Amino acid sequence: MKIIIEENYEQLSQTTAQILLGHMHQDKRVNVSVTAGNSPKRFYEIITPLVKNKTHLANVHYYSFDEVPFKGEAVGMTEGLLRAEYFGPAEIAESNIHLLSPDNYQKFDAEIANAGGLDVMLIGIGGDGHFCANMPDSTRFDAMTHKVDILPEYPWYDGLKADAGDKMPDAFYTMGAASIMKVKHLVLIANGKHKADILKKALEGPVDPNIPSSILKLHPNLTVILDQEAASALDK
Amino acid sequence: MKIIIEENYEQLSQTTAQILLGHMHQDKRVNVSVTAGNSPKRFYEIITPLVKNKTHLANVHYYSFDEVPFKGEAVGMTEGLLRAEYFGPAEIAESNIHLLSPDNYQKFDAEIANAGGLDVMLIGIGGDGHFCANMPDSTRFDAMTHKVDILPEYPWYDGLKADAGDKMPDAFYTMGAASIMKVKHLVLIANGKHKADILKKALEGPVDPNIPSSILKLHPNLTVILDQEAASALDK
Amino acid sequence: MKIIIEENYEQLSQTTAQILLGHMHQDKRVNVSVTAGNSPKRFYEIITPLVKNKTHLANVHYYSFDEVPFKGEAVGMTEGLLRAEYFGPAEIAESNIHLLSPDNYQKFDAEIANAGGLDVMLIGIGGDGHFCANMPDSTRFDAMTHKVDILPEYPWYDGLKADAGDKMPDAFYTMGAASIMKVKHLVLIANGKHKADILKKALEGPVDPNIPSSILKLHPNLTVILDQEAASALDK
Amino acid sequence: MKIIIEENYEQLSQTTAQILLGHMHQDKRVNVSVTAGNSPKRFYEIITPLVKNKTHLANVHYYSFDEVPFKGEAVGMTEGLLRAEYFGPAEIAESNIHLLSPDNYQKFDAEIANAGGLDVMLIGIGGDGHFCANMPDSTRFDAMTHKVDILPEYPWYDGLKADAGDKMPDAFYTMGAASIMKVKHLVLIANGKHKADILKKALEGPVDPNIPSSILKLHPNLTVILDQEAASALDK
Repeated sequence: MKIIIEENYEQLSQTTAQILLGHMHQDKRVNVSVTAGNSPKRFYEIITPLVKNKTHLANVHYYSFDEVPFKGEAVGMTEGLLRAEYFGPAEIAESNIHLLSPDNYQKFDAEIANAGGLDVMLIGIGGDGHFCANMPDSTRFDAMTHKVDILPEYPWYDGLKADAGDKMPDAFYTMGAASIMKVKHLVLIANGKHKADILKKALEGPVDPNIPSSILKLHPNLTVILDQEAASALDK
Repeated sequence: MKIIIEENYEQLSQTTAQILLGHMHQDKRVNVSVTAGNSPKRFYEIITPLVKNKTHLANVHYYSFDEVPFKGEAVGMTEGLLRAEYFGPAEIAESNIHLLSPDNYQKFDAEIANAGGLDVMLIGIGGDGHFCANMPDSTRFDAMTHKVDILPEYPWYDGLKADAGDKMPDAFYTMGAASIMKVKHLVLIANGKHKADILKKALEGPVDPNIPSSILKLHPNLTVILDQEAASALDK
Repeated sequence: MKIIIEENYEQLSQTTAQILLGHMHQDKRVNVSVTAGNSPKRFYEIITPLVKNKTHLANVHYYSFDEVPFKGEAVGMTEGLLRAEYFGPAEIAESNIHLLSPDNYQKFDAEIANAGGLDVMLIGIGGDGHFCANMPDSTRFDAMTHKVDILPEYPWYDGLKADAGDKMPDAFYTMGAASIMKVKHLVLIANGKHKADILKKALEGPVDPNIPSSILKLHPNLTVILDQEAASALDK
Repeated sequence: MKIIIEENYEQLSQTTAQILLGHMHQDKRVNVSVTAGNSPKRFYEIITPLVKNKTHLANVHYYSFDEVPFKGEAVGMTEGLLRAEYFGPAEIAESNIHLLSPDNYQKFDAEIANAGGLDVMLIGIGGDGHFCANMPDSTRFDAMTHKVDILPEYPWYDGLKADAGDKMPDAFYTMGAASIMKVKHLVLIANGKHKADILKKALEGPVDPNIPSSILKLHPNLTVILDQEAASALDK
């Protein structure tokens, strides 16, 4: 694990952009898995003009790593966010977008393997320690891409219900820790004081299913990029 | 995880030899980590004449992955076994042998990283689920190479004491699960009926610190080779 | 370049089998390109029973690297030989066989790139120094997979015409040297006294378009396996 | 080969920085080979503040790829330029600098292999088509790192003599094309109208020892970054 502590969110986003663009500019098919949410927002702003309409980046394919299919919505939560934040603005060709869905989750690992595996994945960390949709309690560390039944017994149930309301799905879908270990380069970003405590637990505490991202320390090639605030609780 | 079930121990050993020799015959430095013990005995018999005095295998370097330094013995347990079973008979050059020891354990991960990382590692599994010297209860999954203090509270203490007697050391040394995830190809072999139960737990049960080898399912490129007896309790 | 000189053809074939099987037994999609002809005959005999009906080798995909479409024949020369010598006897699933043809040659490099690239390729060398169907005089070293027009001006025209007679095609198809450089591990085998002179030129002489295989020395991970006779003219 | 044509020298330098920094930020030893000269000047300006005193980049090691040991000078030409343009300003630790020299050229390939190989190399192209110190006429494509005797018969002799005067050395040292093929990612940069003609020959013409860089088209993972002027003579 390599931890990079940047001065601020802007520099964190610039460094993230360098890493992702560095992979993309190779002369080979490059499979990238990207995340939605707040942390990567500035990163997407930076790379969008550098990626949009660049024919020399036709070798780059994108994969999502989770999906929450809200009831009555044609497009899943992750797909919607990725299209709004990146695929749309950067005008990524549909042929280069590969989305995890309730229909393909059982074949998604094989699809990725048959494309040569994921070269790089960008992820965030939740305040509760989740990564992708590997949530506290419901995580089994040895899982590849799988379906997670949404049950009232899980500590995250009420929060999801509050957000989803009538659209609450019965299940969501995510790559598991075993899928993530196969990614050749894993990049975890986090910024802000509200992430400081969970980062201390995830990066410096023991491996614990209640803090799913604590397993990421085992990844063979993990780069963690934090701003000063997010890193403020770490020992070193 | 790929599981290969062979007819018998002989065929298991032949397949293991093919995999290791396949790596070694490349035109690059190849870093191999090998195990001692009963499971690889026939494997060593097979490869010794194919490796001995072969100048075209001067590119192959060997690393041990654990060491138990019995008191009053000049040579640690792992070193002694590896020299007796393989390095001696195969006449491996000293310059190509890199042994973990109490003196170098804090620098061993760096030494391996600076040599390009381990290409392949051959490991066995203990009846109690240990791998390398990651033993039940004393295992912290996110460890790289580390020292393990030998304490009476551990479930394996009495067994070790019975073996070691007056030579009982205060600590032993081992690569951890985080070191092992960095190995590019991990090969686990096991044979015999007495390994059937622990293999079921390790390969089909949840990740559990009391069964250290249960973490190996997360390795990005793991080949498990079993004979029919060792595989007899597996679901599939 | 690593040169392995084996006692005889049997040992050459065993070592070749170890290398290819070593690649295949990984827990990832493995893309293999294999050759037809005399040199690999014993190799195919060795691996056929080890590969046939092995579900744990469903991850292995096969690619041909050239094709000569004789007129009036439904099946090209390379396809015919590969099916007779290996795909048929080893009962390789059609879904795992990917054949270069006049119809797909312009897309073949992309197809391979989109499957993660070739992990290993086994090739032979012709008495005239050709590899794949890169023939003396008609070879342009920077070519990827391409069509070669069959013209009377080439030194190999008369020989091909003598073989092909009425079935003489207008063109054949082959991966070029630039395609081959992208293969992660290249394995060249040759046996017998009649190969000694061309091997000396190819392996120890300058890079020369009239000896196409002289370019193979630039491959980043090349293993050459010879028997004593084939190696007899080499300096070292 | 992937060709990227940037608007101008500034953007070319930014893209080059992204690629190099992308490699460096991994959690593994990263071996980088860099070039001196005019083309990378802006690139060095960009990366110097991003690299200087960054402890998280202690994993990055630098290798030079050629050396011209002028008589009577304590420091070779390449070393002098690299120190002035990058190693000095960026305060790279001496332990991370590995310089090719008359003393170590016979062991340099082995040193690199034993460190896991070069991950990325940045090169330029000379107006005469040279790369590294592989010059017209004196280049043998299958060479690894080697010594080049400076002889009056070579087309570049008079130019070098005019520059070197009394300090004219008897030989210089360079990695050869076979060394370069082993680099995992090769990045070639060129800017300005005066490079347009040679780039057309090198990138679109046949492989030719009189245009040494024409061999680079065979590299398995080559990214070429040009400004509009340097790209102006290319067909596409």
